[in-house]
Amino acid sequence: MRKVAIVMGSTSDLPVMQQAIDVLRELDVPCFVDIVSAHRTPEKLAEFGQTAHEQGFDVIIAGAGGAAHLPGMLAAYSPLPVIGVPVKSSNSIDGWDSVLSILQMPGGVPVATVALDGAKNAGILAAQILGAADADLRHRIAEYKQALKNKVENGSTEVRKKFNG
Amino acid sequence: MRKVAIVMGSTSDLPVMQQAIDVLRELDVPCFVDIVSAHRTPEKLAEFGQTAHEQGFDVIIAGAGGAAHLPGMLAAYSPLPVIGVPVKSSNSIDGWDSVLSILQMPGGVPVATVALDGAKNAGILAAQILGAADADLRHRIAEYKQALKNKVENGSTEVRKKFNG
Amino acid sequence: MRKVAIVMGSTSDLPVMQQAIDVLRELDVPCFVDIVSAHRTPEKLAEFGQTAHEQGFDVIIAGAGGAAHLPGMLAAYSPLPVIGVPVKSSNSIDGWDSVLSILQMPGGVPVATVALDGAKNAGILAAQILGAADADLRHRIAEYKQALKNKVENGSTEVRKKFNG
Amino acid sequence: MRKVAIVMGSTSDLPVMQQAIDVLRELDVPCFVDIVSAHRTPEKLAEFGQTAHEQGFDVIIAGAGGAAHLPGMLAAYSPLPVIGVPVKSSNSIDGWDSVLSILQMPGGVPVATVALDGAKNAGILAAQILGAADADLRHRIAEYKQALKNKVENGSTEVRKKFNG
Amino acid sequence: MRKVAIVMGSTSDLPVMQQAIDVLRELDVPCFVDIVSAHRTPEKLAEFGQTAHEQGFDVIIAGAGGAAHLPGMLAAYSPLPVIGVPVKSSNSIDGWDSVLSILQMPGGVPVATVALDGAKNAGILAAQILGAADADLRHRIAEYKQALKNKVENGSTEVRKKFNG
Amino acid sequence: MRKVAIVMGSTSDLPVMQQAIDVLRELDVPCFVDIVSAHRTPEKLAEFGQTAHEQGFDVIIAGAGGAAHLPGMLAAYSPLPVIGVPVKSSNSIDGWDSVLSILQMPGGVPVATVALDGAKNAGILAAQILGAADADLRHRIAEYKQALKNKVENGSTEVRKKFNG
Amino acid sequence: MRKVAIVMGSTSDLPVMQQAIDVLRELDVPCFVDIVSAHRTPEKLAEFGQTAHEQGFDVIIAGAGGAAHLPGMLAAYSPLPVIGVPVKSSNSIDGWDSVLSILQMPGGVPVATVALDGAKNAGILAAQILGAADADLRHRIAEYKQALKNKVENGSTEVRKKFNG
Amino acid sequence: MRKVAIVMGSTSDLPVMQQAIDVLRELDVPCFVDIVSAHRTPEKLAEFGQTAHEQGFDVIIAGAGGAAHLPGMLAAYSPLPVIGVPVKSSNSIDGWDSVLSILQMPGGVPVATVALDGAKNAGILAAQILGAADADLRHRIAEYKQALKNKVENGSTEVRKKFNG
Repeated sequence: MRKVAIVMGSTSDLPVMQQAIDVLRELDVPCFVDIVSAHRTPEKLAEFGQTAHEQGFDVIIAGAGGAAHLPGMLAAYSPLPVIGVPVKSSNSIDGWDSVLSILQMPGGVPVATVALDGAKNAGILAAQILGAADADLRHRIAEYKQALKNKVENGSTEVRKKFNG
Repeated sequence: MRKVAIVMGSTSDLPVMQQAIDVLRELDVPCFVDIVSAHRTPEKLAEFGQTAHEQGFDVIIAGAGGAAHLPGMLAAYSPLPVIGVPVKSSNSIDGWDSVLSILQMPGGVPVATVALDGAKNAGILAAQILGAADADLRHRIAEYKQALKNKVENGSTEVRKKFNG
Repeated sequence: MRKVAIVMGSTSDLPVMQQAIDVLRELDVPCFVDIVSAHRTPEKLAEFGQTAHEQGFDVIIAGAGGAAHLPGMLAAYSPLPVIGVPVKSSNSIDGWDSVLSILQMPGGVPVATVALDGAKNAGILAAQILGAADADLRHRIAEYKQALKNKVENGSTEVRKKFNG
Repeated sequence: MRKVAIVMGSTSDLPVMQQAIDVLRELDVPCFVDIVSAHRTPEKLAEFGQTAHEQGFDVIIAGAGGAAHLPGMLAAYSPLPVIGVPVKSSNSIDGWDSVLSILQMPGGVPVATVALDGAKNAGILAAQILGAADADLRHRIAEYKQALKNKVENGSTEVRKKFNG
Repeated sequence: MRKVAIVMGSTSDLPVMQQAIDVLRELDVPCFVDIVSAHRTPEKLAEFGQTAHEQGFDVIIAGAGGAAHLPGMLAAYSPLPVIGVPVKSSNSIDGWDSVLSILQMPGGVPVATVALDGAKNAGILAAQILGAADADLRHRIAEYKQALKNKVENGSTEVRKKFNG
Repeated sequence: MRKVAIVMGSTSDLPVMQQAIDVLRELDVPCFVDIVSAHRTPEKLAEFGQTAHEQGFDVIIAGAGGAAHLPGMLAAYSPLPVIGVPVKSSNSIDGWDSVLSILQMPGGVPVATVALDGAKNAGILAAQILGAADADLRHRIAEYKQALKNKVENGSTEVRKKFNG
Repeated sequence: MRKVAIVMGSTSDLPVMQQAIDVLRELDVPCFVDIVSAHRTPEKLAEFGQTAHEQGFDVIIAGAGGAAHLPGMLAAYSPLPVIGVPVKSSNSIDGWDSVLSILQMPGGVPVATVALDGAKNAGILAAQILGAADADLRHRIAEYKQALKNKVENGSTEVRKKFNG
Repeated sequence: MRKVAIVMGSTSDLPVMQQAIDVLRELDVPCFVDIVSAHRTPEKLAEFGQTAHEQGFDVIIAGAGGAAHLPGMLAAYSPLPVIGVPVKSSNSIDGWDSVLSILQMPGGVPVATVALDGAKNAGILAAQILGAADADLRHRIAEYKQALKNKVENGSTEVRKKFNG
């Protein structure tokens, strides 16, 4: 069963959002992926926001760029936690518009915002949320983080050999 | 008949948005005023956006602060021109979030954005739009601008007397 | 008859402003195009601003970069609604100068500002303004927005097939 | 049992972080509150980060200002989801430092960031995360959001009466 | 004879621009002061810009806030050197709009920009420009700078006594 | 005789500063060019600043990037008007450091700042300053500005033919 | 013997710089204090920079606001490590100018920059530098940091009692 | 014996941090190099921070990008002076996040911050700190700075010949 829905405003957001899909697959968390444009398909956004929790989703990841309204509007409609990914799209002013229009939500309607283009972290955060009720998943996340640690340690070994020989 | 609808995300936006109401009254353009919160009453936003043109409105003025999604979402739903007023609300980062989340709309869904807290100009812009088909209104706008000019000229007269004696 | 005038500060703004021309042509709205430099041909700016409404124009679209004074000065001279397009020109600081010097107009003299390099939206906004008195045009705009929606839906279909198969 | 831990870098962050405490109490979610300074008590931070999940916590809310390292370092140590609240402290440059040093975490170590001084939303987000396994809590969150909606509607009624009478 | 013209967009700019008037009086350089609004009295701006050099002025100081077009448009019309003073007016976004819309002039049309609210330096710069052909004035400027130096030295004496005693 | 000195902090600033040299040559104003680094050759800076007016210079143009101290320190030492050119060097944060460290001089010590990389305008401004006492130069500047105007008009003619045919 | 020199551009910087004096006194490190203005007393700056190491100083702390050239120019003249304190003076644009004109020094001439108005940290950093050759001082710094830790722990005790009772 | 430790958050920071290694080698100051990730290997960070001074190091140079917590957390743990290098990594918003999360440390825990990507200056600063107790090193630093000066003078000679011939 798919518990994570990943939606984005445009197919042009896919190269960034693919990182969320990849890390969730790596953590063996199936996800549903769709394009939902706040500004071009607002009715679809409303319907998805209103029904996502009834479709069995537990978390929504939403990515968008520029005046990025998708994550915040989903948070307005849905009782689920919404993770927002600001995308540095081509129509963005260095990413500031994407970041601020996702992050600065008013009191009562949170969006859990990650770094600019930080879709990988959105995936991990979704897994951490699901992990509260899934000991196996928590274990896989721990392994994932250990692998990151190992990679740093390998880099450390190389660098120490090269410079401190 | 009221052709201009002025909506805002919160009653706390009223002190700024009052300027739009005032200038439209001064120009004898009746307007309808309401609170519509993109994040707290998204269904009302959707309904208003879908029906505003059927209710007889020709222009929408929408003011909001922080991650300001109201103007852009109304533009998504409505075929009418939407004028957006970024409000420097208390939960705003110096107004940058309000400005960018209203201004940086994607291609296909424009919002006519005015200055931060620039509700007066939103009112004048709405009047200019209506003025295309209303010679009397155009005349009143011309008189309004002439009054601004006169006020500058009066300041000029005082300053010249004081300093250039 | 041409009801929309598109002016820009320099031929180097043409690649951006072409989007406004294209979308207006797509909507079957004839437009007049010219180069008017606020800083190099100020007399021409003044004359154009003072006479545009007498030449039959109903809306002005003005694009400029850097310290972009063309839209605001046209708004100072003309009774017509002026739509400003901030252009991220080569002499711009990441576009911030263009955006702020067009957006932050003083009370009494509005410029309807669109996104950085957002000339397409300037064209659509101009069409929406003209559409108030032109039911056919409103219909064509509705079709245009429907086409954008369809394009998103096609992307959605592809993405859903690829990822949710 | 307390499932949410709220920590902050300094007692001066308490006025902002109190909003998270209040909203969680309103939602009947007991929380644990402590001061943990990343820079003055780093050992305590490490110990808390390493043991929070063993102490029965399911979510951590961490607030800090300036070069705000507390949320990110807790995310480095803990397998739990960490919600970060950028605080506009007196030593902050308009809040930008707080926001960026919490939001811009590297791939692998997410912090769910909310708006500047947005501790209320941190509390709601924590409740939404816990709500995945608690139907009663989900119900209370829905009631809370309904109350916000009602408050907007009351404002709307007043404003409509006043202006559209 | 008055060789320096000080113009500003609004009487609300006077408290800042007064510093330029004061320093020029201190340097015994007579100046002419007026209000010229780029956006409300564009014809007056054009006329002043076209004729200032014929009226005997050698330098123009122009102050304005927000989307500040006055200095740049005077530079467009006049062959004289134009000194621009960005004013942090009430409708400004922390002064950034004033600074950028004065500073970022295109190639061919310079404005000599001073610091935000830096009208005193505009006055001194005007005096330095006139001083090229006026040995007495150069002498008075040297005395003025010496007085600044003395003031710093007096502060130094006090501080050294207080702390190093 | 050379009345304009053009100095810059590094040979890497030459591609930008060349524009000032070129426009001054075009205006037949001989200039002296040198490298003076505020941070690497501070004694040379001090000597040049103290003696420039005795060497016959009437204006100094100084270009630098990053923490750009050259223009301001020359203004501290010299009684001459100093024109500052912020250079977007490779070690600059998008040019903001160069702009702010040249523009924001304290009261008493002005630097006439031009746009980021705006060396051409620095050259023209220097010529305008010299032109106060040189009718021939004023005439050449007028011709230069007329040539810019003609170039815009040629662009206008082409664009009008292409689009308005 | 005084090994730390604390200089600042103006007596108006004293309230901020006093923190450095206070923390050094608390650590029993005698310091010398003076006013040296880069722009008003450049000769004094040069002399101080050239001779500070001969006067027995081991570290220089320099504070300044706006276009803050004092720290960087001292680093240019002196072989000693220079610690720069950006001061948010009244003529600063929210402190950004002070920060960037101190931080962004070119390769070869470092300034050890601390936070905006962070004079206390400048004092501690100076003590840490001196501490390399002074075991007693290192001990006093450790005690100072322990006191900070204790203060956090006291706050923690109070907060835990109040909220977790 | 190695007195300078250079650590960085990732091998991707090496191209920038190599400048610090190179300049220290040029100054004949042996250094130790390692990868320590605040977020992926926080235990290693804690251990290194707690023991660096016992391992014989006198100065730590730490480089990191994005939400850069490595320098500040080392400063929290270590009694040694810590020099922070903000790295403009690929996940950075134009470097602002790196700069602010290193620079804006709270009172009591300084990080000596250098320019964005300014690792060379970090190396020189470390050498200056060691130089307090090492006359030979001071001499080598003086020679290094003289070489920079000579390079500027050579550029000056070329430029003067080319332009002033």
